Amino acid sequence: MDFRDRFIVKPGSKLHLSKIDPSYTGKHDSHKKAEAVIGEQIARMSRLQYLLYADASQSLLIVLQGLDAGGKDGVIRRLFTGMNAQGTTVFAFKEPSALELAHDFLWRIHIRTPAHGDVVIFNRSHYEDVLIVRVHGLVPRTVWSKRYDLINDFERMLAENRTRILKFFLHISPDEQLARFKQRLEDPARQWKISESDYTERERWPKYMEAYEDAITLTSTKHAPWYVIPANNKWFRDLAVSTIIADTMDEMGLKLPPPRVDLADIRRRYHAAVRRARDKAGKKAKQKG
Amino acid sequence: MDFRDRFIVKPGSKLHLSKIDPSYTGKHDSHKKAEAVIGEQIARMSRLQYLLYADASQSLLIVLQGLDAGGKDGVIRRLFTGMNAQGTTVFAFKEPSALELAHDFLWRIHIRTPAHGDVVIFNRSHYEDVLIVRVHGLVPRTVWSKRYDLINDFERMLAENRTRILKFFLHISPDEQLARFKQRLEDPARQWKISESDYTERERWPKYMEAYEDAITLTSTKHAPWYVIPANNKWFRDLAVSTIIADTMDEMGLKLPPPRVDLADIRRRYHAAVRRARDKAGKKAKQKG
Repeated sequence: MDFRDRFIVKPGSKLHLSKIDPSYTGKHDSHKKAEAVIGEQIARMSRLQYLLYADASQSLLIVLQGLDAGGKDGVIRRLFTGMNAQGTTVFAFKEPSALELAHDFLWRIHIRTPAHGDVVIFNRSHYEDVLIVRVHGLVPRTVWSKRYDLINDFERMLAENRTRILKFFLHISPDEQLARFKQRLEDPARQWKISESDYTERERWPKYMEAYEDAITLTSTKHAPWYVIPANNKWFRDLAVSTIIADTMDEMGLKLPPPRVDLADIRRRYHAAVRRARDKAGKKAKQKG
Repeated sequence: MDFRDRFIVKPGSKLHLSKIDPSYTGKHDSHKKAEAVIGEQIARMSRLQYLLYADASQSLLIVLQGLDAGGKDGVIRRLFTGMNAQGTTVFAFKEPSALELAHDFLWRIHIRTPAHGDVVIFNRSHYEDVLIVRVHGLVPRTVWSKRYDLINDFERMLAENRTRILKFFLHISPDEQLARFKQRLEDPARQWKISESDYTERERWPKYMEAYEDAITLTSTKHAPWYVIPANNKWFRDLAVSTIIADTMDEMGLKLPPPRVDLADIRRRYHAAVRRARDKAGKKAKQKG
């Protein structure tokens, strides 16, 4: 299956989340079989990241969005752990600071975008400014409704500078969320993560779905597509996300750059250094002898 | 062997690099046996990083310094790949920008120090301002000679804010460097990394040793100790660095924080959410039936 074709929200098409089954796993019916493929995709990502880093003329920006317990942290832990820490950075966007709020909503985002050669993962992102901000009415409609165009312009500018952008919505069902809340409640090692907002936000589920549908519909573009990933099964989620990332990186035409130096000249320098080292060792031996 | 006792530069003592054998491996004579232990240390680091992240009241700053081909990139690739990308960030400090040069030398460093809960790795650091800057005479002695105290003050401030600081000098011999340059030259996948400065800097080896000895002697403190790691053998280097990091993290008293919420209250909320979900499902079934 080409996961990109299957899960992309085609630019210009209207997304209906209710029509997408969060438990979908296609013909992949076995967690065990999928594990091997996930391992292969992580290895591909890791190999391609080295080329991206060496090539240093393009960047990759991965945006992860989803409701509480949707699996954003899990995707990061599983898929990016194999990547070289040098060149891979995760930013988790939380409630903005007073200083951040005193600027436009893209200000804190822009300074975290990847430099050429780098992969940056956004755990939540500028999309919160048309999601939680809209659902909670933190700014008036006249303000948030203009942000879709502003986001498209911003992302187009990044793309013009050779940043490849991939946006994932991790789609889970309310029942799956509740099952995950139960796991958190029963596991002492994870109780510290529980917050009351897990439950209060859950009550706004339909409003979030509406906000996500609008955001994804209005900002899935050729240069920065959205993928809606069925995420009730963690293994299928990881399989789909890793395959889409690796397939995309494969298409970026990444290759090792040519040497920056004249290799013949460097060879001469190398041999001169070897001779000097030998002379020095010879002198030392004489002094001792 | 307690690697920390073995390789620390005791605060107040004078470092003589010529007395430290870069090929030292102690009683660890086998690469193969060491591999298993390195794996264990990485697993410890990874487990402790989760606690550091959850606890979010302390930070860890790791400074890596060494000459070209000393193994800084190798340490990062090997040891930090197992850490969760969320909470682990690497900064590679290169030639400063015009804006950075227009500020004091710690300005670009300070904004990259770890927040509570985070691990930050510096690949090169503020120490370059008493190393390459001194060797090349980029600022007068009256300027760089004051920086040792400034660095100690700065690092003490970070430590006061519960940042644990570990500084590693990866100690290789000139012959080992030359052998690694040869590998780069012969491996087409690594030729892009070669720069002329590899060779011109090598000619300044004694001046670098002098600058390192002074820097390490003057800035190895109780709150921010230096470790000089014999690094001719990559496996021994990785073994020593990973053990020192894991032993240090072990001492930080990291533990899972208590829940931020009243668990009894959350349990009530959970059961109410389950009831609501059942009622909703019941209504839907009726409508259909």
